[in-house]
Amino acid sequence: MNNDDHIKGKIRDSFKRQAFMKLIGAELVLIDSGYCEIKLPYKIELSQQHGYFHAGAVSTIADNACGYAAFSLMEMSSSILTVEFKINLLAPATGDYLLSKARVIKAGKTLTVCTAEVFSVMGTVEKKSAIMQSTLIELKNRADYSQEKK
Amino acid sequence: MNNDDHIKGKIRDSFKRQAFMKLIGAELVLIDSGYCEIKLPYKIELSQQHGYFHAGAVSTIADNACGYAAFSLMEMSSSILTVEFKINLLAPATGDYLLSKARVIKAGKTLTVCTAEVFSVMGTVEKKSAIMQSTLIELKNRADYSQEKK
Amino acid sequence: MNNDDHIKGKIRDSFKRQAFMKLIGAELVLIDSGYCEIKLPYKIELSQQHGYFHAGAVSTIADNACGYAAFSLMEMSSSILTVEFKINLLAPATGDYLLSKARVIKAGKTLTVCTAEVFSVMGTVEKKSAIMQSTLIELKNRADYSQEKK
Amino acid sequence: MNNDDHIKGKIRDSFKRQAFMKLIGAELVLIDSGYCEIKLPYKIELSQQHGYFHAGAVSTIADNACGYAAFSLMEMSSSILTVEFKINLLAPATGDYLLSKARVIKAGKTLTVCTAEVFSVMGTVEKKSAIMQSTLIELKNRADYSQEKK
Repeated sequence: MNNDDHIKGKIRDSFKRQAFMKLIGAELVLIDSGYCEIKLPYKIELSQQHGYFHAGAVSTIADNACGYAAFSLMEMSSSILTVEFKINLLAPATGDYLLSKARVIKAGKTLTVCTAEVFSVMGTVEKKSAIMQSTLIELKNRADYSQEKK
Repeated sequence: MNNDDHIKGKIRDSFKRQAFMKLIGAELVLIDSGYCEIKLPYKIELSQQHGYFHAGAVSTIADNACGYAAFSLMEMSSSILTVEFKINLLAPATGDYLLSKARVIKAGKTLTVCTAEVFSVMGTVEKKSAIMQSTLIELKNRADYSQEKK
Repeated sequence: MNNDDHIKGKIRDSFKRQAFMKLIGAELVLIDSGYCEIKLPYKIELSQQHGYFHAGAVSTIADNACGYAAFSLMEMSSSILTVEFKINLLAPATGDYLLSKARVIKAGKTLTVCTAEVFSVMGTVEKKSAIMQSTLIELKNRADYSQEKK
Repeated sequence: MNNDDHIKGKIRDSFKRQAFMKLIGAELVLIDSGYCEIKLPYKIELSQQHGYFHAGAVSTIADNACGYAAFSLMEMSSSILTVEFKINLLAPATGDYLLSKARVIKAGKTLTVCTAEVFSVMGTVEKKSAIMQSTLIELKNRADYSQEKK
């Protein structure tokens, strides 16, 4: 395994440790250098009062895709945290599933800036439903998991 | 019941129709004119890879508290959607529960601007863990629920 | 003149009425349907304490380019205001001039969402120095200028 | 002079080196630990097409007030840069002058998060016209000025 594969393996492990991803049913679809896709199939439990995907669910997968896109360019021994993000909800998020596509815009020494788009996918039709701009911080020499539960 | 009580009733109904709130276990603690508090008890299903509350869970209750703070000042016949929000994660969100406190900064004819703070509460100690600034839009003469599921 | 030319003419007039653009020396380089470029040549008066372009100058031309990109898709009789924007400063803004490129992501009935990039240009080298995500509102049947000075 | 006075002196010097502040006519009104106020008297050169203060001018003094509020809690040998900010424009910025009031919400080891409010002041009436949420980074052991002009 080359280093790139190690990073991808680290990301898949990290994703699995995120219990919240399991709760909502999100799937890590694609991870590449500076790029990540996360899919969220529709289920009624994710909806807001009109039956659409809740804005919180939309922002969760956009934030997470940004996080892993950024993480893919960081050192193996580092962990990562979201500093902040901003999201615009462009249209009701609905359909068979949501697909979040995130890419790194700038990978700095400490901070990484990403953008993400979230698409509502119904059959073969994709509709852009949200865009995000976010900032993440690399925590050097810190494990990406915790022994303590809380 | 005066009009204020009607609005509060409408908000409690709307909150109950948000299946996503049930999934994560969020509770509507307090609703007043231009103000809302939402509580999110810790459970492992809400965590990210370090065991903290996931940023997506944090932003979900901040967004929702802003939404209902704004909704409390709108007309009975209106519905509401989040236009956009920005959140800064100040410290790991952890503890017994999160408490999101949102207030309206400006209630305009069409748009409402809110801010929210999210506190990590452990026993009697509250620690500010996130702040949000958000924009919401009033949809006049539109029901705050949907007959269709999806 | 077709309607497209009318809109472009309206935008050039609006730009000229923005005294702040004249003060900082910004130039409207390109306007198209849903797209706008604004250039800001370096002068020491625009700098912050390190001699770089001030973040305020960077955000000014990014905001303005978004505004006119959005305005280009609105009705002739409408005016426009910025609701909010978020900007990430990726690298020190420096060079011969800044070039802000903005495009419309979603043109809604009331709100328009745009993104902009700001490049530092030195000779033939362009370096991405900032990215913006913004929301604008269309004010129907309102003149895009004012008789009163203040 | 105690250390607090040294920091205040450093900030006043830094402000004076910001040529852009001179161009727009901004004044450093108040600096305290984690708090800063900047004033911007109206002049026609700062206006947009309706004669109001340009959003770029509003965001410039909000960003700058956040920067100096954050700077006031940093080490003497450090410099500072804005990572990102988000601003909501609540009402037309107008009046005799604008007053930006910024405070530190969280001063971290590397990053500081601030909020700012901008008021339109006409005679004795203050009207909240904008709110900002921003992130700044401390650059350790770096001079807050540059020998080179550009």
